[in-house]
Amino acid sequence: MYFVDVDDIVAEKIVVSKESLRGTHFRRAGPRQKVYFESDEVHACIVTCGGLCPGLNTMIREIVCGLYHMYGVTGVLGIEVRRIKRFLCSKHNPLTPKVINDIHKRGGTIFETSRGGHDTSKIVDSIQDRGINQIRRPGLKVAVVGIQKTIDNDIPVIDKPFGFDTAVEEAQRAISAAHVESESTENGIGVVKQMGRHSGFIAMYATLASRDVDCCLIPESPFYLEGPGGLFEYIEKRLNENGHMVIVVAEGAGQELLSGNTCTMDNIDASGNKQLQDKKQKLTINLKYIDPTYMICAVPSNASDNVYCTLLAHSAIHGAMAGYTGFTVGPVNGKHSCIPFQRITERQNKVVITDRMWARCLSSTNQPSFFSPKQLFAKIGDEKHGDNHVEDLAIK
Amino acid sequence: MYFVDVDDIVAEKIVVSKESLRGTHFRRAGPRQKVYFESDEVHACIVTCGGLCPGLNTMIREIVCGLYHMYGVTGVLGIEVRRIKRFLCSKHNPLTPKVINDIHKRGGTIFETSRGGHDTSKIVDSIQDRGINQIRRPGLKVAVVGIQKTIDNDIPVIDKPFGFDTAVEEAQRAISAAHVESESTENGIGVVKQMGRHSGFIAMYATLASRDVDCCLIPESPFYLEGPGGLFEYIEKRLNENGHMVIVVAEGAGQELLSGNTCTMDNIDASGNKQLQDKKQKLTINLKYIDPTYMICAVPSNASDNVYCTLLAHSAIHGAMAGYTGFTVGPVNGKHSCIPFQRITERQNKVVITDRMWARCLSSTNQPSFFSPKQLFAKIGDEKHGDNHVEDLAIK
Amino acid sequence: MYFVDVDDIVAEKIVVSKESLRGTHFRRAGPRQKVYFESDEVHACIVTCGGLCPGLNTMIREIVCGLYHMYGVTGVLGIEVRRIKRFLCSKHNPLTPKVINDIHKRGGTIFETSRGGHDTSKIVDSIQDRGINQIRRPGLKVAVVGIQKTIDNDIPVIDKPFGFDTAVEEAQRAISAAHVESESTENGIGVVKQMGRHSGFIAMYATLASRDVDCCLIPESPFYLEGPGGLFEYIEKRLNENGHMVIVVAEGAGQELLSGNTCTMDNIDASGNKQLQDKKQKLTINLKYIDPTYMICAVPSNASDNVYCTLLAHSAIHGAMAGYTGFTVGPVNGKHSCIPFQRITERQNKVVITDRMWARCLSSTNQPSFFSPKQLFAKIGDEKHGDNHVEDLAIK
Amino acid sequence: MYFVDVDDIVAEKIVVSKESLRGTHFRRAGPRQKVYFESDEVHACIVTCGGLCPGLNTMIREIVCGLYHMYGVTGVLGIEVRRIKRFLCSKHNPLTPKVINDIHKRGGTIFETSRGGHDTSKIVDSIQDRGINQIRRPGLKVAVVGIQKTIDNDIPVIDKPFGFDTAVEEAQRAISAAHVESESTENGIGVVKQMGRHSGFIAMYATLASRDVDCCLIPESPFYLEGPGGLFEYIEKRLNENGHMVIVVAEGAGQELLSGNTCTMDNIDASGNKQLQDKKQKLTINLKYIDPTYMICAVPSNASDNVYCTLLAHSAIHGAMAGYTGFTVGPVNGKHSCIPFQRITERQNKVVITDRMWARCLSSTNQPSFFSPKQLFAKIGDEKHGDNHVEDLAIK
Repeated sequence: MYFVDVDDIVAEKIVVSKESLRGTHFRRAGPRQKVYFESDEVHACIVTCGGLCPGLNTMIREIVCGLYHMYGVTGVLGIEVRRIKRFLCSKHNPLTPKVINDIHKRGGTIFETSRGGHDTSKIVDSIQDRGINQIRRPGLKVAVVGIQKTIDNDIPVIDKPFGFDTAVEEAQRAISAAHVESESTENGIGVVKQMGRHSGFIAMYATLASRDVDCCLIPESPFYLEGPGGLFEYIEKRLNENGHMVIVVAEGAGQELLSGNTCTMDNIDASGNKQLQDKKQKLTINLKYIDPTYMICAVPSNASDNVYCTLLAHSAIHGAMAGYTGFTVGPVNGKHSCIPFQRITERQNKVVITDRMWARCLSSTNQPSFFSPKQLFAKIGDEKHGDNHVEDLAIK
Repeated sequence: MYFVDVDDIVAEKIVVSKESLRGTHFRRAGPRQKVYFESDEVHACIVTCGGLCPGLNTMIREIVCGLYHMYGVTGVLGIEVRRIKRFLCSKHNPLTPKVINDIHKRGGTIFETSRGGHDTSKIVDSIQDRGINQIRRPGLKVAVVGIQKTIDNDIPVIDKPFGFDTAVEEAQRAISAAHVESESTENGIGVVKQMGRHSGFIAMYATLASRDVDCCLIPESPFYLEGPGGLFEYIEKRLNENGHMVIVVAEGAGQELLSGNTCTMDNIDASGNKQLQDKKQKLTINLKYIDPTYMICAVPSNASDNVYCTLLAHSAIHGAMAGYTGFTVGPVNGKHSCIPFQRITERQNKVVITDRMWARCLSSTNQPSFFSPKQLFAKIGDEKHGDNHVEDLAIK
Repeated sequence: MYFVDVDDIVAEKIVVSKESLRGTHFRRAGPRQKVYFESDEVHACIVTCGGLCPGLNTMIREIVCGLYHMYGVTGVLGIEVRRIKRFLCSKHNPLTPKVINDIHKRGGTIFETSRGGHDTSKIVDSIQDRGINQIRRPGLKVAVVGIQKTIDNDIPVIDKPFGFDTAVEEAQRAISAAHVESESTENGIGVVKQMGRHSGFIAMYATLASRDVDCCLIPESPFYLEGPGGLFEYIEKRLNENGHMVIVVAEGAGQELLSGNTCTMDNIDASGNKQLQDKKQKLTINLKYIDPTYMICAVPSNASDNVYCTLLAHSAIHGAMAGYTGFTVGPVNGKHSCIPFQRITERQNKVVITDRMWARCLSSTNQPSFFSPKQLFAKIGDEKHGDNHVEDLAIK
Repeated sequence: MYFVDVDDIVAEKIVVSKESLRGTHFRRAGPRQKVYFESDEVHACIVTCGGLCPGLNTMIREIVCGLYHMYGVTGVLGIEVRRIKRFLCSKHNPLTPKVINDIHKRGGTIFETSRGGHDTSKIVDSIQDRGINQIRRPGLKVAVVGIQKTIDNDIPVIDKPFGFDTAVEEAQRAISAAHVESESTENGIGVVKQMGRHSGFIAMYATLASRDVDCCLIPESPFYLEGPGGLFEYIEKRLNENGHMVIVVAEGAGQELLSGNTCTMDNIDASGNKQLQDKKQKLTINLKYIDPTYMICAVPSNASDNVYCTLLAHSAIHGAMAGYTGFTVGPVNGKHSCIPFQRITERQNKVVITDRMWARCLSSTNQPSFFSPKQLFAKIGDEKHGDNHVEDLAIK
């Protein structure tokens, strides 16, 4: 399953017109000649939800500037989560290009955000209070566009989320530190936690980028601890060979296995520096545990993510101004497209461990595969998707 | 021409099999079940040509490690350009994963490279001296693979060159400094030179990434200096409005115009800090000129480029081991492909100034377009390409 | 006690000759005309002890290069802690300027080090094995020099330890991330742990450098949690005013108080993101906890620490070659000096909380002083030191 | 003259009271119990002069915050150089801690500054316009304090200027790039210009910090180009040995020598990449020239400079509030002091090339000393300073 079919070919041009339809297609994002809203009747609102990730401020900036420069829209508001924040706008204090000119140079978001649930009714109330027509009520002239903020890359269809490159860059810094720490002691093990409850993309890419990693554990790839071919055996072997090692663990990796075991991250003491005693092997190890999560989330986006945010913001603006609603935007095979919400919520994006990217990761770490391909297939099952149609966007 | 056609759609799956052929397609890169060379008969050679760019060492590392780990190839040599360099290998001192383990963490290349021409015969001699079969002689079992090192992004077909993201990141630093310098004086103008003799991609992306730029000049977009709608008028207007500005100039931008003029970069004095006198306007300006070229070329590649280098190196290795020759590798619409040399040498990649990316750049700077679309069309002409076939690779 | 005496004056020249003696003085470090050892009889050994800190590799490099370039010493060894490390030298493989040329560009140490005790007998054995005369046996021609590796700055007399500037720089990065995270949620509290079991210097300097901190807690400054004027009251007040805050906690700050309390760092869950419930106040807070310790220790030293390491290494070399033993080196009021071991082990360096530096820190955070000066005096007691003599170094 | 006298000793305590007078002493900086001005009658003004350097914004921030928090002074103004700048305050818009809270995180200055002369009368007019009593008129209650902004470190008495550490850090980046570039070609020479028209401190410290430099040229150290023992001979020797080299040149180094020569920086072409032909030796070299000046000046100050700026600002504030005038502040042997203007203007600080720091620099590069100590003495002459008294500050 790992090999490329000798006849597989890649199309140079993938933007096609409707009659050539084969497989799923999405509407291309971009400016339309016919615009649905009048600029001066537009009341745009921006709300940021979920935890921080690099690029939120750039995104806010680009939506405000894009609406202003491309369509002459001036009335852009940020939605109040609870208290008036420094930059939060009201009708008398709208977000203008001037106000948000430099915000992309700092991390975080100028609005409050919150991990762990948002109160939809509060948001809607806030919209109503400002004389903005309520969303979702049929027949109303309201366009709802989402730009998915998923640093874990667990949303399907689009090529990658904004902030991802920056996150991998920062994740690599933590791995580099763990590598240096592990090298400096006998049987040193550097353990770096990476974000990713359901998808191990950050762990996988940071592992590939740094090349200092001896083992990368992700939620998608099952593993076991004890016995022949298990993680403990590999750790012991690696320490005997090299004297030190680095393990990258995505947040959701093997959670059922680790709990209750001496080698878990849960019972690492405050200093993160525990001398664990593997009973059977009498192997004394020096474990250094690094959790860079908050430092990753709080950095400003890098140059590549800055440009990417502009493209996403513009696609969102063009789509909304053209009257589409209920969609998200993002590149599909590098071409920016509009994607209906249900297409990205119906399943999660995951590292496909029978795919070549994961094979590359395994090859770079030399870690064991733990299970045979046949066993893996049985564990994961088979996933099929794909049908032949254009994903039509609701037009108001 | 700027607008998206309302019926344009983007394919979700673009790797197809031969019978569905429409438009140009390339062979997909990746491991083949059938390998052409025996691992122990492989004598691989690496040569780096042209100026430095971020990622060269990562690329060398990944080729050596990939050949070793994926195909068990141990005899990898670097080609001697003139003198024995520290790491340069001979038969008795081949490049092994151990030797090159950490080289991706520093910039430059462990081999000598040289901008401005290479001596083909010397390279071939060097190959012969080592008992490697001469390349290009028909019927011989030799595979030649190129990985294009073009930081300017002036090579067509592939999505982007390696090192590009890193270069834009560093370019942004220089722009940021120019912005700070220009703000600190009356009528301060920060001028930042960017690489790009024929293609203004770095200038354009760095402009979009930094958002501190008031004017971006690239080779592809003609402009003029004097008179209504010219560059001087815009500079004056901008200084009157803001008191300072930043101009990004790609190496090859408007070269015919600038020479002989007081505002050129050629006659900036050693300190780069000249108070120029625009005769007609009696406007005294403070110009600070920054040329970050060498600092950009010498940095190590960032995380995203590190991963990218791995993918390119693996594609090159798989293609060569499968027996293909005379090709380069790179993503086409995000899918890694093998591309015959002639496809990337027959034309140059350029910023398409009638395209949306350049429109975004103009929108972010607010600079004038200098010429009407009609005038531009007349100047640039029309470019057509595209035929219906698979680009077949020579197989030895 | 906070004020400067109106008659206090500072000497411009503080290097004096013996007859002008008043107060404690140390021998000035530097090259002596008369050298005690012959270059070719010198067998130098380097051992690194304790945890990592920025600059260890620079220090190793400078000792090797300094001995080689200034005194022609070639036989420099590193002491084997347990297993042969990549760069570890034996007699057949000594540390030469060429071998260690680039090591200052990466963090950590090329030797193994270990926090938490070293085995003196092993070290001595290792020295013996190599034919080096045993240290400490009276009458032998051996010079023992220490360069104190104390990133916490808890060693007295010298102005600051090497690596300190780099550590504060990195500590500031963590504070910056905590600030961004805290701002993004309602009642967000960013807590950053800093190194310092007994001395709060890193916490204090990082607080002063970043200016994003609302409360800095160090071991030297007692505080209490509950009741009027306590920490909890201050947190509540600050959150009501600003909606978010950053707390910097040195490792050893108020340990007796924090244990067993709901607000401790000990029972923060794995994600570091716990919504704590202050029972009395019903104040829901969002706490983000960052521990940057290992990332700080593993970075390469910055430019200023690089130069500092050179000066320390040279002072150590000159002192040893002049025949002094049992001493450490470091700047005293900016002048590099030789200091007998007992002078730096007889007491610990601590933040003097009645001093102006701590007053500045309090002023920058606006945190309460918790105790009145009189109470503090009662708690801390009075420290007196100072006698009138030159600290004579043992000369072999 | 290079050696330390065997009896030289360093005082541990150097803050003394008047009766112990020996040599020049300065008043210690710090808060006085008796304050000369009433807080509510204080109208403070800040003006920044000369070119940019790292830390200007931090300094402005600390003066505003220090006056506010330590003395309750609210009426702080910035002086208008010509046009109203974003942050520039008038009476109705004074600089408050809130307004300038984050300015230390970006480079440059929020006020306009200008290299090359300021118009004193304009500044004085501006002060008058705001009802501030004219300065310098005898008998008036005005305190004038300067904080020397001299990134070159050419001002005497104080230990180092603010921004210096940051500048050396950035200078090191440029040297690192030059090193990588020079290594990548045959006979590659990386030339890095460093600031310093009269004093080579940045060049010297950056050379010591980076260790990649083969030759460091500064204004204080005479050298010659041709003939035995000259620079050209050294370059040739170095290229023959290593194949590449890095030269650091302070702005003012050997200017009389370089002009008119083929190897000067003046006739390097636009790309900075000229293949020069040394006629006599027929040695083809590849020269890459990097001028990082503007990028150095525009970065934000690092952590260590941030803290340093606070200390300087506080010393200035305390001194002014105590009624002293006509003085500057800075550490003398690590102790912050008040220094009368004439003491820092009567001579320039220069690298003392008979001192050990320069000896260390030469030792790290292995460059020739060009002249014998005797010749140097003849060229430079002898400098004597030092008299026995306390520098009294004028008190209004």
